Amino acid sequence: MPSSASSEIPVFDDVKDAAGRLAGRALPTPLVESALLNDALCFRLLVKAEVLQRTGSFKFRGAYNCVSRLSEDERRRGVVTYSSGNHAQGVAAAAQALGVAATIVMPKDAPAVKIANTRAYGADVVLYDRRTENREAMGAKLAAERGLTLIKPYDDRYIISGQGTIGLEVAGETRARGIVIDAMIVPCGGGGLISGCALAIANESPGTKVYAAEPKGWDDTGRSLKAGTRLSNPPGGSLLCDALLAPTPGEMTFVLNSRLLAGAFVVDDAAVYKAMATAFKHLKLVVEPGGAVALAAVLTTAAEWRGKTVCVVCSGGNVDADVFKTALAHGNE
Amino acid sequence: MPSSASSEIPVFDDVKDAAGRLAGRALPTPLVESALLNDALCFRLLVKAEVLQRTGSFKFRGAYNCVSRLSEDERRRGVVTYSSGNHAQGVAAAAQALGVAATIVMPKDAPAVKIANTRAYGADVVLYDRRTENREAMGAKLAAERGLTLIKPYDDRYIISGQGTIGLEVAGETRARGIVIDAMIVPCGGGGLISGCALAIANESPGTKVYAAEPKGWDDTGRSLKAGTRLSNPPGGSLLCDALLAPTPGEMTFVLNSRLLAGAFVVDDAAVYKAMATAFKHLKLVVEPGGAVALAAVLTTAAEWRGKTVCVVCSGGNVDADVFKTALAHGNE
Repeated sequence: MPSSASSEIPVFDDVKDAAGRLAGRALPTPLVESALLNDALCFRLLVKAEVLQRTGSFKFRGAYNCVSRLSEDERRRGVVTYSSGNHAQGVAAAAQALGVAATIVMPKDAPAVKIANTRAYGADVVLYDRRTENREAMGAKLAAERGLTLIKPYDDRYIISGQGTIGLEVAGETRARGIVIDAMIVPCGGGGLISGCALAIANESPGTKVYAAEPKGWDDTGRSLKAGTRLSNPPGGSLLCDALLAPTPGEMTFVLNSRLLAGAFVVDDAAVYKAMATAFKHLKLVVEPGGAVALAAVLTTAAEWRGKTVCVVCSGGNVDADVFKTALAHGNE
Repeated sequence: MPSSASSEIPVFDDVKDAAGRLAGRALPTPLVESALLNDALCFRLLVKAEVLQRTGSFKFRGAYNCVSRLSEDERRRGVVTYSSGNHAQGVAAAAQALGVAATIVMPKDAPAVKIANTRAYGADVVLYDRRTENREAMGAKLAAERGLTLIKPYDDRYIISGQGTIGLEVAGETRARGIVIDAMIVPCGGGGLISGCALAIANESPGTKVYAAEPKGWDDTGRSLKAGTRLSNPPGGSLLCDALLAPTPGEMTFVLNSRLLAGAFVVDDAAVYKAMATAFKHLKLVVEPGGAVALAAVLTTAAEWRGKTVCVVCSGGNVDADVFKTALAHGNE
């Protein structure tokens, strides 16, 4: 573990502390909207454009927050992580910025753009087969053999609080502009992003309800919240939302999400493609499938939000051109 | 004319005044960059993401600056303009925001998204044939018959100074972040955007050289600058960059550009498509062909900028899906 404190459940002060560390390192991303889209939806939709974050996804925030806390000795030995691609790039870029060597375990079938970019940030990429190999075991083995510090993708105090700076920015900007947000919908895989955001929103905008959005077949957090215990996903789900394929809610993230979330939405692949096409047409943003699930959730439940103000996080934009072309074909349905 | 003052060449104070009027109306758009792209290019590239502006292009700035200055009587009678689509949307949205009726003369072959959006902002759209009809004459006729105020697309003091707020934002943000810009490259059709930006940069960042970028076959400003007099474009040029098809430099914009520009670049359609694919891959931005010419110019002359810091304006993102798909196919060349 990078430090004994990292397995503690984060508190709001951890998010504020992360914001201080990230100042001048991560970008404060814009909150965008489209007047025409708002008119068509009959509610106000604010989109936190985290696709514009360094590395093309929010993952740089948590990764930098973690890696920047390592001791001199830990930095000298290097870090290791496992990730389908966005956390990989986040850790690689954060490690590069801090002069730390990074080894990243990635699935062979990750989007080509994610593997290429992770290598371009100077990381040593180790590929594995998603169907036959266990990435957690590979990461733990590399950590033990080479003395590397494991940077977990979500179940970590500093990862969660780093991602939570998004909630802090949303609360700060909307307050400054006099906007009251009724609901915030956030993509959810292992739950690091949403638990951090919920922590910030609970403190800075307590009237705002926070909801998870998950892809069909990977709705473990939604089902676990209802059951009151952590459930796993059945095999065979679509792999379209490659960024959100965690097998089960994180231990720490589930503690926070159980306390802080108002509920969860599930979206199918067609809704995801359509949301990507909407972001292309109305917001001029490139959003990857997993990054578009919150937008897909709000678009497919538009009637519920009439007259309200809803914020969704578009959490990443690292998508191969072929997948994006398929999404564009859903724009005129 | 909307007021007797609008045919005066703008000065820097007009840009500052426009910024005051646009505060809280236009969005201060982000300056984005990609570490991986910078590494590949061997220089620092900052992209002013004006695709995120209201209406999906910079045109809202000048349009709002103009329409907000009309007298009560002029507002009551309404406005008219001619445009291939971005100025159309800018005027329609500005007029709608100010409760003014707008009539817009648009070519039949404008991108479908631009015509649909202009109508969605409540404007009355009148279509014409680019090959057989004269849009200036149609605009003047409608203005005379219906008592409408003509909002010119570029050759106007308040249009130029409104667009110039982009230069003001770039200078302000880079100064605040301690970044020195060696060059700024700006898309150029009639020249309103670039002349306004050059006016702001000359005053706020005088060490920065400002260059125009134009599509092949529509390089009237570049040729006119060399000749010292306003030249027209020959017929038969590609229509890909639909936003930049002005027949000749504006009178007022040419006066400013002759005094303030360091030069001009010409880019062909393949370079434009490739720039759109680069913006997709590295910046997560949807950029339309005309909006991508400055990015295309800097990418095709990368060797010239080694070690420097260059800012390009990506001026609009209103592109139909089919054109975008063609651009994506140029991403792997």
